Amino acid sequence: MVLKTLGPQTAADLDKELMSEDGGFTIDQLMELAGLSVAEAAYKVHPPSSGKNILIACGPGNNGGDGLVAARHLHHFGYTPKIYYPKPTNQPIFTNLQKQLHHLHIPFVSSPEDFDSELKSTDLIIDALFGFSFKPPVREPFDKVLSSIISSKVPVLAVDTPSSWDVESGPPSDEFVGHDFMPEYLISLTAAKPSVKFFKGKRHFIGGRFLSQDVANKYGLDVPDYQGVDQIAEVEVGAPVEKL
Amino acid sequence: MVLKTLGPQTAADLDKELMSEDGGFTIDQLMELAGLSVAEAAYKVHPPSSGKNILIACGPGNNGGDGLVAARHLHHFGYTPKIYYPKPTNQPIFTNLQKQLHHLHIPFVSSPEDFDSELKSTDLIIDALFGFSFKPPVREPFDKVLSSIISSKVPVLAVDTPSSWDVESGPPSDEFVGHDFMPEYLISLTAAKPSVKFFKGKRHFIGGRFLSQDVANKYGLDVPDYQGVDQIAEVEVGAPVEKL
Repeated sequence: MVLKTLGPQTAADLDKELMSEDGGFTIDQLMELAGLSVAEAAYKVHPPSSGKNILIACGPGNNGGDGLVAARHLHHFGYTPKIYYPKPTNQPIFTNLQKQLHHLHIPFVSSPEDFDSELKSTDLIIDALFGFSFKPPVREPFDKVLSSIISSKVPVLAVDTPSSWDVESGPPSDEFVGHDFMPEYLISLTAAKPSVKFFKGKRHFIGGRFLSQDVANKYGLDVPDYQGVDQIAEVEVGAPVEKL
Repeated sequence: MVLKTLGPQTAADLDKELMSEDGGFTIDQLMELAGLSVAEAAYKVHPPSSGKNILIACGPGNNGGDGLVAARHLHHFGYTPKIYYPKPTNQPIFTNLQKQLHHLHIPFVSSPEDFDSELKSTDLIIDALFGFSFKPPVREPFDKVLSSIISSKVPVLAVDTPSSWDVESGPPSDEFVGHDFMPEYLISLTAAKPSVKFFKGKRHFIGGRFLSQDVANKYGLDVPDYQGVDQIAEVEVGAPVEKL
């Protein structure tokens, strides 16, 4: 089965349509469901019995917001999440999500050095640094952090697109940080992105169980084959990829 | 084990605290998680293989909003939900939730007569008419609708408090509609309410997996014993009840 993927412009258009006056979704709702699906994927690949320490690296945009939501759910699922969020965005949703995490006493790691030190006791990393609108190269302080993640060999669950990868052309060229970044796990949000054809990890999920059949048809997407009450659906790694 | 319950004032205070500037939750987030937990409870008591037709009766307040969110998730879970929502509230969250349902082609039943007719082919009813702030008696057109629900004998999942019941003193006295209303299933949101001591149905769930231990401690509540990634926890029917 061919995996349909959305390029950055189409993915942005779809988000915009969902959140338009006609679409009726708010960013609060969509980010809540996206973050919940990230947390469910983490649970699937790494249940709490395999180790509870999860380090979540959050970037400044919506990808980082998904990571913040996931952190809250992971706490409630019985994990001990920690957050690295060096460039907090000063918009209500991001400040609110941080408040929720503070009330749960979830620690925020404040420097790349502390991040390095946390890596030693981490069972899983969630890479919520950059999403589909990212353009290489990775800038400070995220370049150091990404290098640390890669050299740590701790399993990584990447959110939407592995950070440093171009959403279409995949890993950056040899001289840039991230050229050797291959996360074990990937969760694509709403739909996979074209760079998924470079993904050689173990498991790939799609999350965001809010896509209507009408919107899927309009964009040429397939609604993933979700089971039961799951917010995620697993898809085959290495399936042929089609860009819409 | 004693089931701790919140009276209407304390339940309202807790909601207000979560949505305060310090609490950092928005109504969009909390209603999304509440509605998702309602949908998960419906799935648990009545999986799609037992019949896909679910009729959701929504009142004008937040309880109705939880029903609207649940309808969307139930659609994505593979059900065929229909909505009765005769007194739509003209606030963005409610109009937005309706738009989302229209995009899924979920039908809105428009009169008590049509509601009666739909009841004949319904496998499960979700009672999202009134929540913890309701004071009896039930007024038009909800009195007719509730009478129809009761006489239909279709299984009912009640959201937070069975409609017509006083949140503290339970079913109304003999002359009022609802005196003989005993839903099969109940999902309490955030915490059970004192009237749960009158609940003699089959199964009782608690939903709303966002309660922090700090807030639970402050109000004297227990955080329910959620399992895995479930958004609901089942609690014993008939357990001793304590009002906080």
